[in-house]
Amino acid sequence: MNRKMVFYMFGRIGQIVGALLLLPAIVAVIYGEHTQLWSFIATAALAIAAGTVIAACCRTKNKVIYAKEGFAIVSLAWICMSAVGALPFYISGEIGSYIDALFETVSGFTTTGASILRDIEAMSKSMLFWRSFTHWVGGMGVLVFVMAIVSNMTDRSIHIMRAEMPGPVVGKLLPRGRDTAKILYLIYIAMTLVQIVLLSLGDMDLFESIVHTFGTAGTGGFSVKSASIGAYSDYSQIVIGVFMLLFGVNFNLYFLLLIGRFKTVLKSTELWAYLAIAASGVAVITLNILPQYSDFGSALKDSFFQTSSIMTTTGYSTANFDLWPSLSKGVLLILMCIGSCAGSTAGGLKVSRVVLLFKLVLGEIKRMLHPRAVTSVKFEGKAVDKHTLNSVLIYFAVYVFCVVTAFLAVSFEPFSFDTNFSAVLATFNNIGPGLGGVGPYGSFADYSGFSKLVFSLAMLMGRLEIFPLIIALSPTTWRKSR
Amino acid sequence: MNRKMVFYMFGRIGQIVGALLLLPAIVAVIYGEHTQLWSFIATAALAIAAGTVIAACCRTKNKVIYAKEGFAIVSLAWICMSAVGALPFYISGEIGSYIDALFETVSGFTTTGASILRDIEAMSKSMLFWRSFTHWVGGMGVLVFVMAIVSNMTDRSIHIMRAEMPGPVVGKLLPRGRDTAKILYLIYIAMTLVQIVLLSLGDMDLFESIVHTFGTAGTGGFSVKSASIGAYSDYSQIVIGVFMLLFGVNFNLYFLLLIGRFKTVLKSTELWAYLAIAASGVAVITLNILPQYSDFGSALKDSFFQTSSIMTTTGYSTANFDLWPSLSKGVLLILMCIGSCAGSTAGGLKVSRVVLLFKLVLGEIKRMLHPRAVTSVKFEGKAVDKHTLNSVLIYFAVYVFCVVTAFLAVSFEPFSFDTNFSAVLATFNNIGPGLGGVGPYGSFADYSGFSKLVFSLAMLMGRLEIFPLIIALSPTTWRKSR
Repeated sequence: MNRKMVFYMFGRIGQIVGALLLLPAIVAVIYGEHTQLWSFIATAALAIAAGTVIAACCRTKNKVIYAKEGFAIVSLAWICMSAVGALPFYISGEIGSYIDALFETVSGFTTTGASILRDIEAMSKSMLFWRSFTHWVGGMGVLVFVMAIVSNMTDRSIHIMRAEMPGPVVGKLLPRGRDTAKILYLIYIAMTLVQIVLLSLGDMDLFESIVHTFGTAGTGGFSVKSASIGAYSDYSQIVIGVFMLLFGVNFNLYFLLLIGRFKTVLKSTELWAYLAIAASGVAVITLNILPQYSDFGSALKDSFFQTSSIMTTTGYSTANFDLWPSLSKGVLLILMCIGSCAGSTAGGLKVSRVVLLFKLVLGEIKRMLHPRAVTSVKFEGKAVDKHTLNSVLIYFAVYVFCVVTAFLAVSFEPFSFDTNFSAVLATFNNIGPGLGGVGPYGSFADYSGFSKLVFSLAMLMGRLEIFPLIIALSPTTWRKSR
Repeated sequence: MNRKMVFYMFGRIGQIVGALLLLPAIVAVIYGEHTQLWSFIATAALAIAAGTVIAACCRTKNKVIYAKEGFAIVSLAWICMSAVGALPFYISGEIGSYIDALFETVSGFTTTGASILRDIEAMSKSMLFWRSFTHWVGGMGVLVFVMAIVSNMTDRSIHIMRAEMPGPVVGKLLPRGRDTAKILYLIYIAMTLVQIVLLSLGDMDLFESIVHTFGTAGTGGFSVKSASIGAYSDYSQIVIGVFMLLFGVNFNLYFLLLIGRFKTVLKSTELWAYLAIAASGVAVITLNILPQYSDFGSALKDSFFQTSSIMTTTGYSTANFDLWPSLSKGVLLILMCIGSCAGSTAGGLKVSRVVLLFKLVLGEIKRMLHPRAVTSVKFEGKAVDKHTLNSVLIYFAVYVFCVVTAFLAVSFEPFSFDTNFSAVLATFNNIGPGLGGVGPYGSFADYSGFSKLVFSLAMLMGRLEIFPLIIALSPTTWRKSR
């Protein structure tokens, strides 16, 4: 593989993290948080210096990269950003253990939102800002930054794109990967700004509006309150509930809306499946939790918010759903696994994969009944090729294997079955809270350091859709010959 | 479809159940159990009479049957045998509710071994015999009986075979399905007799030896003691532990041994994978439970017995594994899903499917690293065709969907997450006991009638490998046109 190019990119990523850290430093200045300010500046200086040295050493004329290099760069980017991003928490002393700080930062950049904090309100403003900002950065992925550097690497950059973009279908909106990234990024920024404005019209101040928008846009879920969004008005809850759903939609559809292709958007199989699954979830949960509520309206509101939050893998909460009846908890666990649309900021299996899996199953039954019938699976109006279908099936198998392995790895812990199992689903699907001990008002703090590393790996795997990380971590990838 | 032929077979199956019921009737005579005797004889008379009438009415010259008819016949056979087989329990009053009796009989014929009984020792000998006998009959499936009737239906009978034989690979030992069935059946009977002799040399009397052999051979798990095999000596435990493992091996291998092809047997990928998984399970569990035991030997013995029992989907127990550490329980849950070899009497996903899934995953990673490399999946020394691989992947997806659906369907129940979840795995994989409330010393008695029907359906689906039952239950199958 082209190791020089990989390390060169690695250096550039270090510089970017350094630059990103200056934003919370400004917040620290505004709120007069001196210790925090210095921890941000020190980390930024270190990252920029180290990054510059590495990039300078590894500058190479051979800029050709293939899938392997793409996977390695993206995986390294997430790991390196998390490792560096965790330093301010640790240096400032706001999070006592580095593993805890790492867990929190991985959880941030992977837009998971699982937390080891027990007392969120005790954190400084600038650290809370940094914590939520990682969600926003993670949301659209390092992709954009990588794109921004590699100006003379146009065609091959699709490989990085492929490693980065969630879901089985990579939208090729424009021939050049870099332009695609720019458009998606602009849509992302525009939607972020609209949400900040809408939230600040309610009972959130500007700071709260910004951090909660970061958490929504990245489908992350870090809040600045222990009670999460439950601490705010119905208006704020509804704005966030709706925006979570919006950020779970395939961003290609927004692009299509922009260029006026409304019909294509309305015909999107994935969009309708996504809305249908969300609506069914809301209906079942509302009816199921009704006896615990005084009126239908508030049951519907909490059910809508929680369905939206879990399905988009955000993880905000307005109610302690761990106290809901088993059926609702079961539905939420399933929504965790399904996730949202491919090409959104959300995690999970993705609606498109689930739809394809269903169609494959129906096709198999048809084929058993009529052995001579020719069956093909259609999606978004087109027949899906065998190779894509096979990849979806294999991805599903790998997905289940990974969940089972992670579950085994943390089953040393003395917690209940539902705590461990939902903790794995919540991290692997990048949700955040699970059930039981890691429920919406619980925390991952009590897990051992080993398990926190397992969960961190699960979050990274889930975010990168498993394969890139496996490939990046396999020694054969790093062999020099090619 | 050829409905007349399906109903004709249905009638013949009625006659067979009737005939089978005469065996427990003899046991009732021996132990002088009069009420039981009459309930067996009444049910037998009813089944034989109804079966004869149906068979006479539906006699047809068109004996041609295809996959559809095969699936329908096999599915109907299991449902009808369970519905009729439940009558003696209900008529004699030994099981108060018909749904409970049905659950117990489905559990018997599907070789699951899940029970709604709270006090096994209170049951009469003849009922306990009938209960275990259903395991033995279910073990090799109604296949053999169906074969025995249809003497002039040689070539097409492979379709019934396909619906009946567990696992992705149907061994074609001999050209004619009927002869294959006969040989497998003879091996089954021979192994049963050897086990009965070995057990009666220990601390079990003849009756106990017979019923526990029935439970072992069918990989069922009904015992005549509340303490299951824990009530017997180490010798009996080891004999049963070893025989469970033996009945989990692909029966084709025994046939190959008979004709002297030792090399082929020793090269069997599935056999080695099966033994390796079992050995790993024993090793992990032994080390994990060691602190709860006074010496290594007894920990190893219980670990071996339980691994063998769960992996072969039998469900006997010598220890309350619900009290073991989480890791051991996690391992057992995974072994439940893996199951044993294809072509054995066991349930679960089957080792061959799991091996193929692993190879597919490794192949996909290889393909991602070397996009131009040609990868093929090999199994038992031969390249596996694309269609079989696809079926394995789809089966896995359907398997997970069914487990999730069944879990949702029973999540109305007020039981804990691990109880419900393990109850679904224990019935769907035809194990028997699960964890928590349905643990080895628990019972399914407390579940509602609705859930018991869901579990019954899950047991049938698991036993028939899902598709035959779905096809048999779909209305389009029953349309007259073809």
